[in-house]
Amino acid sequence: MIKSKNSAPFSIAVLVVGYELLSGQISDSNSAWIGELLLSNGLKLREVRTCDDDEKEIIRCLEALLNHHDAVVVSGGLGPTTDDLTREAIAAVSGKELVQNETELLRIKDLFKSRNREYHPSNDKQALIPEGATVIENPVGTAPGFKLNIDRAGKTKTLFTLPGVPRELKLMFKFGVLPTLQALSGIKNTSAQSLLRVFGLSESQIGGAISALKLDPQVTISYRAHFPEIRVGFRADKGDHNLSQRCVAECANAAALALGEEYIFSTNPEHSIEHVVHHKLKEKKLTLSVAESCTAGMLGMLLTELAGSSEYFLGGILTYSNELKHNLLNLDSKVLQHFGAVSPEVAEMMAIGVRRVTGSKLSLSITGVAGPGGGTEEKPVGLFYVGFCSETKSKAFRFFYPVSRELVRKYACYCALDILRRHMLGLELRGKQIP
Amino acid sequence: MIKSKNSAPFSIAVLVVGYELLSGQISDSNSAWIGELLLSNGLKLREVRTCDDDEKEIIRCLEALLNHHDAVVVSGGLGPTTDDLTREAIAAVSGKELVQNETELLRIKDLFKSRNREYHPSNDKQALIPEGATVIENPVGTAPGFKLNIDRAGKTKTLFTLPGVPRELKLMFKFGVLPTLQALSGIKNTSAQSLLRVFGLSESQIGGAISALKLDPQVTISYRAHFPEIRVGFRADKGDHNLSQRCVAECANAAALALGEEYIFSTNPEHSIEHVVHHKLKEKKLTLSVAESCTAGMLGMLLTELAGSSEYFLGGILTYSNELKHNLLNLDSKVLQHFGAVSPEVAEMMAIGVRRVTGSKLSLSITGVAGPGGGTEEKPVGLFYVGFCSETKSKAFRFFYPVSRELVRKYACYCALDILRRHMLGLELRGKQIP
Repeated sequence: MIKSKNSAPFSIAVLVVGYELLSGQISDSNSAWIGELLLSNGLKLREVRTCDDDEKEIIRCLEALLNHHDAVVVSGGLGPTTDDLTREAIAAVSGKELVQNETELLRIKDLFKSRNREYHPSNDKQALIPEGATVIENPVGTAPGFKLNIDRAGKTKTLFTLPGVPRELKLMFKFGVLPTLQALSGIKNTSAQSLLRVFGLSESQIGGAISALKLDPQVTISYRAHFPEIRVGFRADKGDHNLSQRCVAECANAAALALGEEYIFSTNPEHSIEHVVHHKLKEKKLTLSVAESCTAGMLGMLLTELAGSSEYFLGGILTYSNELKHNLLNLDSKVLQHFGAVSPEVAEMMAIGVRRVTGSKLSLSITGVAGPGGGTEEKPVGLFYVGFCSETKSKAFRFFYPVSRELVRKYACYCALDILRRHMLGLELRGKQIP
Repeated sequence: MIKSKNSAPFSIAVLVVGYELLSGQISDSNSAWIGELLLSNGLKLREVRTCDDDEKEIIRCLEALLNHHDAVVVSGGLGPTTDDLTREAIAAVSGKELVQNETELLRIKDLFKSRNREYHPSNDKQALIPEGATVIENPVGTAPGFKLNIDRAGKTKTLFTLPGVPRELKLMFKFGVLPTLQALSGIKNTSAQSLLRVFGLSESQIGGAISALKLDPQVTISYRAHFPEIRVGFRADKGDHNLSQRCVAECANAAALALGEEYIFSTNPEHSIEHVVHHKLKEKKLTLSVAESCTAGMLGMLLTELAGSSEYFLGGILTYSNELKHNLLNLDSKVLQHFGAVSPEVAEMMAIGVRRVTGSKLSLSITGVAGPGGGTEEKPVGLFYVGFCSETKSKAFRFFYPVSRELVRKYACYCALDILRRHMLGLELRGKQIP
């Protein structure tokens, strides 16, 4: 992985407060999210700390972070219970009194009313903020956040305090913290980024093909495996946003050509392979059915993740047992016996069978050895076939991906989705053995 | 949430090294895992820090942590690239030279050979450890870890360094770090814990019932929502392991009685509701089939997550469209039209139909409005029915759980699994509206 080493002159740290994080009850996902958002805005997260709900500990960590960084974002410890001590610690560090914010108090009471929940006076505490602090509005929860300036190490440092609930923190950070950080840092975001989402190539194949291109060394390339896809990111900062944008677009295009554009199913962080297939099926007014053996419903589930999938998904048949392959899909028992359930012949007949039974325009099937048991030398764990059938053709594709049961099943479904995607885009349909 | 405040006298911190964590490419799951393991062994994680792959930053954070804590666990930055600087930083902090460990160098080279990967001399670096450090063996990857004593703040502090790859770190921490921490701390684990895994009650119902019991105040009770189940943990430290064990067992029993034992599907952290159902179906030599509408395969997928599920799972029918409900499950079109697809009548007939078609002993069905669109006043989003059919009875159960599409579908599947569990245990079958 190539990493960006351009240290921003403006240094930002996060302090995560909460016993539940140190005792493993939950993992901290907020700080990774903050780090990513900062980076895409030309800023950089320099340090993250997690400490206990202990006033002394919070004070100790806050002092250290304020001494070292320009801005500190504190998350958590703003709730109504006696364990929530972030406010008190900040009052101690800043030497400010905590005062009741009447506007916020009213808002919190109204929120309880609108949610039909009884208001307990312990919640008054959530409207306390240090004197001189500015409220950061919480559009979805009770505790407001706040911003406070504190002088340390001869400079004015900025402290942002937010509730730890991810849904609340994310909204408040995006709209109530990021703009201030951008203004304070004086850093204009002159960087840009681009993304390729790849399915069907291994990380080393992708890395090999891209590094052979000798792209602009100022472009940071990152490879992120999100099983079963790999996301390739391009980031550049040429001192000018348009210039950066042109640069990453050129790199991404060159990389896509080198990899084979057919393997890039999306360049949008929001569009998974399911999304792509969903929209294409709707656009082309196609209907679809599935016949699943080893995945036992996972493909049907993935195809109906998005609302509106009833426009194209008719249904499917789960034939875990051979008997049902025969009874429900009209597969010839002799053929089944001759080739075995995990064979291209059976995959193809399953696809043909389910298309006939449901009357769909297209159909997909999966049959394989998910393991961990049940493999043979001839048909090892990780071997599977995807069948496809349309009005004009039917075919089966062989794949071999010997990993855990869970991953074999997931991978098989995505191979089927990819065959469907390829069919709708007029690309070559193909199976692949990925080591 | 009630939180334990017993500060262990032995203070442990984790330093996570890696730009990929500060830039949001991955989240840190290691430290939560370490925190949980320490706690269940009577030890406590006091602080976690994340810093960049920058030698100066690693040194700064290490110095601060060594000054403040008794033991520091560093994860990450032990790879072969120029970005991996943890070794160098530790050499600087400890004033020790890095020396090649010949045994480890041979092991690493052998590992490359056994994996059919070409050995590049840049990997030599991974066998470097500070003079005087003890190797912590890595049974699954290349870089070894190491343990090193460093004097700070008038005491001997212990520094453990491990690779950041979760699979490697976890094994090495468990077998190469934890025993030493236990020995160093002199803390005998006199604590004990117990767990109830609950399905079908809300967090507030559970919290209300348990707090009304007025259990031993020395017992720490934690509520952890793992949608769609809630895990209630009991922890006590009575200064003696057996005493603690008896105490948490009594509390857990009292809580189970208060909640209704039928809602506790497991007390084992490893046994999900799928596990329970899987083993029970095998034990009772039952066979099962499913008919799914809005979940479109998710139930079948969950029922086949574990190897060996072919012993009981025959298959199923996904009837997303009404036509297929009629064609594949022989549902009377008039009945379907009269009651609507989302009705107890149709749920029951789907279960009866799929049982007949597949010849299974038991069957389950799901039909509902997963949303976000498609709801009406009479049949709102979040309404679903689970059908059940055995040799002797067939019935449908109504549920209403108006949440996101993804969660409605997941919740519906778990309601179906729970009905199956209840049937096999001879418990009352019931639907429930959870607000």
